[in-house]
Amino acid sequence: MLIVMKPSATAGDVDAVVKLVEAIGLRAHSMPGATRMEVIRVTKPYKLITLDLCPDKTVVRIADATIGGSELAIIAGPCAIENRQQAVAVAECVQRSGARFFRGCIWKPRTSPYTFQGLGDKGWEITAEIRGEFGLKIVTEAVDESNVDLIEKHGDMIQIGARNMQNFSLLKRAGRSRLPVLLKRGMAATLEEWLLAAEYIMAEGNYNVILCERGVRTFAQHTRNTLDLASVPAIRRISHLPVIVDPSHGTGTAYMVTPLARRQRAGFDAFAVRRASRGSSGNSPVCLVKWSC
Amino acid sequence: MLIVMKPSATAGDVDAVVKLVEAIGLRAHSMPGATRMEVIRVTKPYKLITLDLCPDKTVVRIADATIGGSELAIIAGPCAIENRQQAVAVAECVQRSGARFFRGCIWKPRTSPYTFQGLGDKGWEITAEIRGEFGLKIVTEAVDESNVDLIEKHGDMIQIGARNMQNFSLLKRAGRSRLPVLLKRGMAATLEEWLLAAEYIMAEGNYNVILCERGVRTFAQHTRNTLDLASVPAIRRISHLPVIVDPSHGTGTAYMVTPLARRQRAGFDAFAVRRASRGSSGNSPVCLVKWSC
Amino acid sequence: MLIVMKPSATAGDVDAVVKLVEAIGLRAHSMPGATRMEVIRVTKPYKLITLDLCPDKTVVRIADATIGGSELAIIAGPCAIENRQQAVAVAECVQRSGARFFRGCIWKPRTSPYTFQGLGDKGWEITAEIRGEFGLKIVTEAVDESNVDLIEKHGDMIQIGARNMQNFSLLKRAGRSRLPVLLKRGMAATLEEWLLAAEYIMAEGNYNVILCERGVRTFAQHTRNTLDLASVPAIRRISHLPVIVDPSHGTGTAYMVTPLARRQRAGFDAFAVRRASRGSSGNSPVCLVKWSC
Amino acid sequence: MLIVMKPSATAGDVDAVVKLVEAIGLRAHSMPGATRMEVIRVTKPYKLITLDLCPDKTVVRIADATIGGSELAIIAGPCAIENRQQAVAVAECVQRSGARFFRGCIWKPRTSPYTFQGLGDKGWEITAEIRGEFGLKIVTEAVDESNVDLIEKHGDMIQIGARNMQNFSLLKRAGRSRLPVLLKRGMAATLEEWLLAAEYIMAEGNYNVILCERGVRTFAQHTRNTLDLASVPAIRRISHLPVIVDPSHGTGTAYMVTPLARRQRAGFDAFAVRRASRGSSGNSPVCLVKWSC
Repeated sequence: MLIVMKPSATAGDVDAVVKLVEAIGLRAHSMPGATRMEVIRVTKPYKLITLDLCPDKTVVRIADATIGGSELAIIAGPCAIENRQQAVAVAECVQRSGARFFRGCIWKPRTSPYTFQGLGDKGWEITAEIRGEFGLKIVTEAVDESNVDLIEKHGDMIQIGARNMQNFSLLKRAGRSRLPVLLKRGMAATLEEWLLAAEYIMAEGNYNVILCERGVRTFAQHTRNTLDLASVPAIRRISHLPVIVDPSHGTGTAYMVTPLARRQRAGFDAFAVRRASRGSSGNSPVCLVKWSC
Repeated sequence: MLIVMKPSATAGDVDAVVKLVEAIGLRAHSMPGATRMEVIRVTKPYKLITLDLCPDKTVVRIADATIGGSELAIIAGPCAIENRQQAVAVAECVQRSGARFFRGCIWKPRTSPYTFQGLGDKGWEITAEIRGEFGLKIVTEAVDESNVDLIEKHGDMIQIGARNMQNFSLLKRAGRSRLPVLLKRGMAATLEEWLLAAEYIMAEGNYNVILCERGVRTFAQHTRNTLDLASVPAIRRISHLPVIVDPSHGTGTAYMVTPLARRQRAGFDAFAVRRASRGSSGNSPVCLVKWSC
Repeated sequence: MLIVMKPSATAGDVDAVVKLVEAIGLRAHSMPGATRMEVIRVTKPYKLITLDLCPDKTVVRIADATIGGSELAIIAGPCAIENRQQAVAVAECVQRSGARFFRGCIWKPRTSPYTFQGLGDKGWEITAEIRGEFGLKIVTEAVDESNVDLIEKHGDMIQIGARNMQNFSLLKRAGRSRLPVLLKRGMAATLEEWLLAAEYIMAEGNYNVILCERGVRTFAQHTRNTLDLASVPAIRRISHLPVIVDPSHGTGTAYMVTPLARRQRAGFDAFAVRRASRGSSGNSPVCLVKWSC
Repeated sequence: MLIVMKPSATAGDVDAVVKLVEAIGLRAHSMPGATRMEVIRVTKPYKLITLDLCPDKTVVRIADATIGGSELAIIAGPCAIENRQQAVAVAECVQRSGARFFRGCIWKPRTSPYTFQGLGDKGWEITAEIRGEFGLKIVTEAVDESNVDLIEKHGDMIQIGARNMQNFSLLKRAGRSRLPVLLKRGMAATLEEWLLAAEYIMAEGNYNVILCERGVRTFAQHTRNTLDLASVPAIRRISHLPVIVDPSHGTGTAYMVTPLARRQRAGFDAFAVRRASRGSSGNSPVCLVKWSC
């Protein structure tokens, strides 16, 4: 149920309603900024992510940078942080291109238990250097709840990967964090499942969720995944959350990143770009989109 | 096998080689404009569609209009021509928007035998009026070989629909036509299958083939089909044929046409736009993209 | 609309109603054997295929053999008839195994225009020998309308392949044939689309339609197609038409034919088995399921 | 790398090799029962799951019951344990049918945060009664690592659900358990991804892994998932692990469970059956397959 306060309601009025709601054993979500006057019974499966609740688009703020506002945000970096030399070389290139967010896995979810699983804790020293020297914000993936503790200590944004989009314990843990959460779409997730995964995070109190389209699995073999760009306008019709697109993971092929990332006020909030090659060749620079706008 | 003539070869030289090839019982394809000197054994499954054969992009000319050249081509119109009033109203709107091609089904492939199957021959009178009054070129779908005869008489471009992408008898018949062929991707066609369908047309001697991405069938339910925009750069790497995108059929939803059609030199040759609504509401205007470039 | 005659209605009574229906410009379908008394407004998209129309299962009779009755029908043979030696060797093996139907393509729909397209008319001499010597019924695929004429002259059953499941002109032509039609499911066809394709055939007057599940296209790569066995009970709930399963084309791998064909009154009417190898190795025997029931 | 000991090797010999392997910083997996003599460099992406490592099929023993042996194992029960009355009624029915395993979720992974998430710890009292009174083994799903601790205390088998098939931290934790692990295939998992998920469990030392085919996500809408029965023979060619099939979750429809579960030595080791209805109607009995063999 949605209780919309009058524009003249004071913080104290809101608090009083919240206390009342909690007194009857429910959880209250207070969303400042909503201006609609009606009382709304939300009948859709999702509640907190909807434009009904928050008609204005959410702008996620990370220090002096924003995602979902007028700024075109770019998240770029290698798939995994492999060593200091590789990560710093990529970070320099990321900063030079004007991007504000550095993405690099500390823990890498890998299909096989026998392949490189990430540097783990040794990676934090490298990210600290990148943050300090280049002023980039650190985005890294949490593969379990204990990872979230460490990202809260050392990073700026928690990524939930496609494979964990319905790891509900992890979503709940991220929902109790003060850091923004980048929620990638699952490999075969419907829009409803994806939005309800965001709802899990928001239901715990963390409203800074950024959705990331990264392609879905289909019969098509000319790309690693099939980038479903129509999910962006579809989400825009339903939700106030920012949506970003990952054309590098979404296609798996470096030469496709630029054509699929190009947009001119096309409705995307940001792009997440990582090196699109599947291999792991230490010092190759990130495949980065250049933006002229 | 590819036999590349010297730049200095005369038409007579080419003819002599063609005769030789035919004398040994093979079919010769002479592609003017190719300038490479080597002799190439083509080992890929497709031959005529490749950049190996024709390194320059094919520009399809339809009277004074082009597809695949510097002009941004737009094909627009209703799903089916339902009656004079509807078709003319849409055509006026199509012309006003600057598009040069009018698309409207005379014969409509329908999932059910009990739904409207198109006006059939009564439609030609309407298209003649549209052609005459608005100067638009007529693009319509052939659902069988006998349709091709009539489109050759009354239309400007033969569309092969998704359901018939592997109707090889129809492809061969279109390959013997002098009209350009708009070949839509099949609902579950791989890139290779689609390109080989184009190869069927070209192997009969018709080199004016335009490929049209119109979405593929996946588990996703927020759109009618999943528009696979990555097929465009993928084809560009392989083929000299123009590729166009159909964002209206590819999404099935009017409000998605504009965001998915927007591009700024993003590598697409054209867009095919039809009314995106599923219903059949006579005089509703086509949902048309406005272009500013 | 469904008009159900009283059990006491004579053939003359039925004729009178049929004439009345036709007098108002509609087509009448008389389905002998239906015994229900009510008048039914059929609101489903399909009408003639439904159990509403014909509560008893359809048994298709081909001379002394049946499909859809108590007999377990097996259709077996090579992908294409390549030459006399290959076809006769396979036919002998088919007959010895107890199967009554020989399947072999005379015209082979091929993804590439440059691969073997079938023997064409030269094949009929071979099928005549197989029919005469082994008493097998000949099942072959029609890839266009002119093929149907020839199958009517030389064969016993018309196969419509997956690629042509929505070639509506071909479906209509098969619907005007006196031969039974084996309708394979399209590569990405929903149940509704498949049943409506059968409806196209029946709407023209041919009620002897056999549905064939042959796998659908998915992301899975361990088989050529994903055999969707659940389509069989799903169709049984809706339709009176017999359903058969093609485990060889459905998997693309010889060793999977037996496990997926095994059933013990599991609800399938028959199996269509062809040599599952992708290659074309002349005289290799067909991979045939042995039945003990 | 695979080091195969001579048949005459004593336990001490094996220990010595294990110590050597560990001395160089690697993990040793000792698989008793293997009899091949060669030394094998395993080049496939999976190692421990392969028939190369263990040519005999794995038989998982749970007290006096087995999965993967000659016994036909059936796992049955409700989707979630909702209350004592419902669970006991179903358990009685499960036991009467001859099944030995009771499946019921204590923690239920749900798409929405607002729907019933399982009884949690209150459920253990109920499973204790079912175990005691009916002699059934308890199979329940772990949605995070802390769940595994509790299942080890109160249950008999750890289920890893489709949504967590690539929750690698959870797989590793299950791999350190002494309980057998039922690993369901992910919604869009390839065979290789599924087998490598099993490899994650085995690489931690737990060799009692049971694979469960439960359908994959496709465009088809007549079932909740598309049951990919061909995965069973495909896995049999590669792995020694038992494979079971879940026809209730795989189709989502009660009437399909029986036709898809029927088999007669068809190569499946067991069936997992749960109530196929999507709703949550307390005391409705489980939809259970009756076995006559």
